[in-house]
Amino acid sequence: MNKAGDDDEGQPGGQSEPVRQSVGKGLSKLSAPSFTPGWSKASCPCCHSERVEPLVLVKLGEKVSPETKRWLIKLIGAPQKDGGAGLLAHPGEEATGNIIVLSAPRCTLLQATEELGLCKMYCSGDMEAFAYDDRDNFRDSDNMEAFLTLAERQFIIKYELDGLRAQKDLRIPGMLDSCVLQKRDNIWQKLGAAGVIVDTFPLHNPDKLKDLSEAWYTSNQLAQPLDKVNEYFGSSMAFYFSFLDFYTWSLLPPAILGLFIAYYSREVQREMLQSVSGSQDEEPQDEPEPLISGHMLQAVFSMLWSTVVMELWKRRSSALSYRWGTLHLAERFAEPRPGFHGDLGVNPVTGRVEPLFPEWKRDLRMALVSVPVVGLFLGLVVLGMTCFYWAEASVQQLHKDWDSMMSQALLFVPSVLHIVYTNMLATVYRTLARSLTEYENHREESAYDNHLTGKILVFTFFNNFAVLFHIAFFKQDIPLLRKRLASLLIITQLVNQVTEVVVPFLVDRFISAPHRTQSEDDPEEDKFRNQGTLPPFPGLFAEYIELLVQFGYLSLFSCVFPLTAVLLLLNNLTEIRSDAYKICKLFRKPFSPPVANMGVWQVAFEVLSFVSVVSNCWLLLLSPRLQDLGQQAGMSGSSLLMAAVMVEHVLILVKVIMAALIPDEPDWIRKKREHIEYTSMQALRQQKLNVQES
Amino acid sequence: MNKAGDDDEGQPGGQSEPVRQSVGKGLSKLSAPSFTPGWSKASCPCCHSERVEPLVLVKLGEKVSPETKRWLIKLIGAPQKDGGAGLLAHPGEEATGNIIVLSAPRCTLLQATEELGLCKMYCSGDMEAFAYDDRDNFRDSDNMEAFLTLAERQFIIKYELDGLRAQKDLRIPGMLDSCVLQKRDNIWQKLGAAGVIVDTFPLHNPDKLKDLSEAWYTSNQLAQPLDKVNEYFGSSMAFYFSFLDFYTWSLLPPAILGLFIAYYSREVQREMLQSVSGSQDEEPQDEPEPLISGHMLQAVFSMLWSTVVMELWKRRSSALSYRWGTLHLAERFAEPRPGFHGDLGVNPVTGRVEPLFPEWKRDLRMALVSVPVVGLFLGLVVLGMTCFYWAEASVQQLHKDWDSMMSQALLFVPSVLHIVYTNMLATVYRTLARSLTEYENHREESAYDNHLTGKILVFTFFNNFAVLFHIAFFKQDIPLLRKRLASLLIITQLVNQVTEVVVPFLVDRFISAPHRTQSEDDPEEDKFRNQGTLPPFPGLFAEYIELLVQFGYLSLFSCVFPLTAVLLLLNNLTEIRSDAYKICKLFRKPFSPPVANMGVWQVAFEVLSFVSVVSNCWLLLLSPRLQDLGQQAGMSGSSLLMAAVMVEHVLILVKVIMAALIPDEPDWIRKKREHIEYTSMQALRQQKLNVQES
Repeated sequence: MNKAGDDDEGQPGGQSEPVRQSVGKGLSKLSAPSFTPGWSKASCPCCHSERVEPLVLVKLGEKVSPETKRWLIKLIGAPQKDGGAGLLAHPGEEATGNIIVLSAPRCTLLQATEELGLCKMYCSGDMEAFAYDDRDNFRDSDNMEAFLTLAERQFIIKYELDGLRAQKDLRIPGMLDSCVLQKRDNIWQKLGAAGVIVDTFPLHNPDKLKDLSEAWYTSNQLAQPLDKVNEYFGSSMAFYFSFLDFYTWSLLPPAILGLFIAYYSREVQREMLQSVSGSQDEEPQDEPEPLISGHMLQAVFSMLWSTVVMELWKRRSSALSYRWGTLHLAERFAEPRPGFHGDLGVNPVTGRVEPLFPEWKRDLRMALVSVPVVGLFLGLVVLGMTCFYWAEASVQQLHKDWDSMMSQALLFVPSVLHIVYTNMLATVYRTLARSLTEYENHREESAYDNHLTGKILVFTFFNNFAVLFHIAFFKQDIPLLRKRLASLLIITQLVNQVTEVVVPFLVDRFISAPHRTQSEDDPEEDKFRNQGTLPPFPGLFAEYIELLVQFGYLSLFSCVFPLTAVLLLLNNLTEIRSDAYKICKLFRKPFSPPVANMGVWQVAFEVLSFVSVVSNCWLLLLSPRLQDLGQQAGMSGSSLLMAAVMVEHVLILVKVIMAALIPDEPDWIRKKREHIEYTSMQALRQQKLNVQES
Repeated sequence: MNKAGDDDEGQPGGQSEPVRQSVGKGLSKLSAPSFTPGWSKASCPCCHSERVEPLVLVKLGEKVSPETKRWLIKLIGAPQKDGGAGLLAHPGEEATGNIIVLSAPRCTLLQATEELGLCKMYCSGDMEAFAYDDRDNFRDSDNMEAFLTLAERQFIIKYELDGLRAQKDLRIPGMLDSCVLQKRDNIWQKLGAAGVIVDTFPLHNPDKLKDLSEAWYTSNQLAQPLDKVNEYFGSSMAFYFSFLDFYTWSLLPPAILGLFIAYYSREVQREMLQSVSGSQDEEPQDEPEPLISGHMLQAVFSMLWSTVVMELWKRRSSALSYRWGTLHLAERFAEPRPGFHGDLGVNPVTGRVEPLFPEWKRDLRMALVSVPVVGLFLGLVVLGMTCFYWAEASVQQLHKDWDSMMSQALLFVPSVLHIVYTNMLATVYRTLARSLTEYENHREESAYDNHLTGKILVFTFFNNFAVLFHIAFFKQDIPLLRKRLASLLIITQLVNQVTEVVVPFLVDRFISAPHRTQSEDDPEEDKFRNQGTLPPFPGLFAEYIELLVQFGYLSLFSCVFPLTAVLLLLNNLTEIRSDAYKICKLFRKPFSPPVANMGVWQVAFEVLSFVSVVSNCWLLLLSPRLQDLGQQAGMSGSSLLMAAVMVEHVLILVKVIMAALIPDEPDWIRKKREHIEYTSMQALRQQKLNVQES
């Protein structure tokens, strides 16, 4: 819990302080409806406020008529019971302009907080699931800017917009007659499809952003301001950075061990020299090597290490989730996600009328459509690799036979073709994964995300590791593997850092920025509009997969190249800063739903940690050192293999037992959870009784 | 759900019917307090009843004075708020006799039902956690004999007795001054230790027992009356018989496959003939065998079968648990078990004052004491086996050298010594396991049971399988393994059936029974007293371990002896009947706590199902047939081993995926559970609000 409580400072007393900052200079025009009556009125009297914080920008299509815009503003401002979103809208400087700025009144925010199942600080000092009716007992519930994080407030606006559904069939005013909303249609989706709405994105808050970036990457401290990240960017982003942080620190033990081994083991030094220099000359072995080689030590350590790290991360993750109030998210009990469709019916859990879609149908679709398609694409990856190897071999043969300029040029053809093929495949697959997941029709946003991520993850991972696995398991060429791994670790990571940060930075600075120069005197609206010219944030997938691939290099092949952890540690220390810079400066601010953990990524890391046992045992078995040892001890190849299999089984058993024994949540969280279960059980009994008496 | 609803017949309308039966002839004397005012009065007026059902018998020590007995009856009858048990007591025919008959008034039963967290049928038709204050909305809550099962009523009496704690320091009246109860001492435990109470056991209900036994084992139907078993013997017994039933039926597919293979595969026939006759002569192989041998088919089938069976059982188990109202047992939230000790403190979950014992201390005790001790005993088993093999070899050598009568007699010495050693070890271990588990100081009865069972289970299983594993993995002697397995399957099971049923039956009939002859005219009290002469029920451990060992033979070594499943199926069909007979006739009725599943046994079966993959792959690899095939295909020993390892990994992967994909509870139960979670969440919010308003 580094930096714990950092952003709590001054909150209880200084309610007006952070607000004044954000209202600041240029904002006064938009944020004080009493002066410029641009903001729509909040529908309930308790929510009238002197200042309104602009949170989200909606960009309309160029050809949208003022009539449509007026209708839209009215819809957004209408109370929820009348089918509106219950938000506050501002039409921008000129009523005919193509933007709408949104904010949310207190009641809407509080009700959505309850619907999302967010936990907030109760007057007793515990985090408890927020209840609108009980709002006065929650701390800061009268000051939204202290009560909800900026990310939560912005997500709630998106949540309300996504939840807009037509209450009856109607024509969109100012649009062609063909644009008709049918009853229960999702309005925001339809408007997007009809081109009325081009974009919806949350607005940066320049002062807070400056604060955050100072605490995060411009100063030189080691700990990240995770609570501030959660406040500004939301819990999904904060979980990524917490994991990055946790994972980076947990690289220390293997890195130290790796350095130690590299320093003391002559064998390892020689091998690494070979892998970097490419020379294959054997040095004379004058001294006897110790019985347990550095590789073995490294392998066994890293296999057990990965389980301990993942179990400890689960504990930290649940502690963070309690801290950030996302431990009891009520997604299951909330409205289904916008894209969900099905026959209307009564939800047996909540008793509400909503679209229902039978579980078995979804399972069937997954089993009969998604799984085969994913399998097909994995097969295509293998096919591509096989063709590549075959083509390379034949081209090399050809070159040997002909030995001409043309044949030399031909040498590059297989690689180029393979790269083109792989990229095309990945693009097609990504589109397909999206439609497959859409077709599976998940009820909850998180289930949708997890299934989509899972699909792309399997493919990307396969794509990344197919070659390494091929070298390790089929070619069984350890020196080649070591060489590949070294080049991947050093070159790929450098390339990644460059493409991820330097290129966007240059593009931003020298290509986009000149069009975006702004002075202090520009109207606030233009500044908002300018944020729209930044590229949208592409999501955390690329960041997570980078970590996963790293973790794969480390755990799957660590015994081949002991300095892996050292290189990764160095990489991650810069990665934290560069990711932070990237997310703060180079992209539009993303919406970030509250999440309770890393979702499918956690599973992926755990699976990898088990696969690593198989791979490490195999690699150790292949190592010439162990083969020598075996021959000296008079063991046949079979009994050596047998021994390796036994060691593997024991290690897997140890890992399973460790994973079962380390509890997934700290004791204090378990107690709090059980206490909540107990009190809600009691409450249920009481309620039944009350219902019966009345 | 065979026999579903069987015992519901006539319940809603015929409330008096079953009662009249049990009140019957001879019971009138004890059960009508208006005639013979022997029963103590219920403390609350609503519980006064014309007839009282004798449920539990307490046997006092021979030397207990009437004064102590009077004090005890008063204590048992006193309301709970005064530190009593709130039960009804009857001193027997003569006030000075050494028995007390107990029953329970309605209010005590209902309150305990809530405390235990039992679910009962709500007026809406769903099973819901019972709440005393809401009792009128539960079906049959005015007729205890329809509302609670007999087993539940009897268990509740035990629960109340176990919960008796001294409210202040006091001397037991009529006893020596040294018998002093200190504040918060567990009275029932202390009285047992002081020799005041010799025995506490539930009484059989002869009419219901006759009903049950007719439906269960005297008639010839295939399905078991599981609901009736649950009603009479309680859910832990009912779960055992449900599992036995489920498991027996699920033996059908492997049995059919086994028969099929035995019929068609010449190789298998020859092997089995050899294993039974003991002859080793090779028959000429005139026809080419098919490529995939019966053994392989059998092995792969049984590996996948075991996972499917266990997953389906979990689903059935949760359905049964819903049906029997034990899905939401509130043991965590109830008082700790009698033997639990610790410093008094406030339970952070329930807020009650009770003994607390920190989790880490228990973990430490388990890690530093229990695990090493268990490991030591497993080591002793291996040591014993090693010594046995060594002694046998030396004795045989000796016999060869001397060849005298004495040396021939010596031949038996190692076996005899080994049997004596093993039995002594088992006895010592059992005592030790009990004190270790006591020392671990578990808060809940179920946790205590699971840890105790787990300890004994590991040891017993190891003891049973050590020899087979030795033959399979070290001697690598498949024919010997087949022979051993055949003899174990046929002989051991016959012996088991005989010792389990025939011996107790004979003892009961010809040794105990003559002392127990009773005529219809005997006073009811003597009949009760007679039940005490039956041996106490030794618990389900022996039954479960028999099933587990069976399952072990089947899943671990099935590919060696394809008819295993057939033999087990035949055995189990009689086992069901004989177990039922045994439990109804040969033992005292046991107390049976409500349980939600099989506890640690389920885990044991699942673990076994994974170990079976390793063992089967290994055995297949050893099989001469596969070795031949490999040689024909030109595969070396190493690559054959490699292939086996790969197959093993794939099978384990498939099993893990299957286990993850098959949901552990049926869809309809998941929905009901989520509905309860949702409503209790709502209720909690409502309650907070009410508290705040008032």
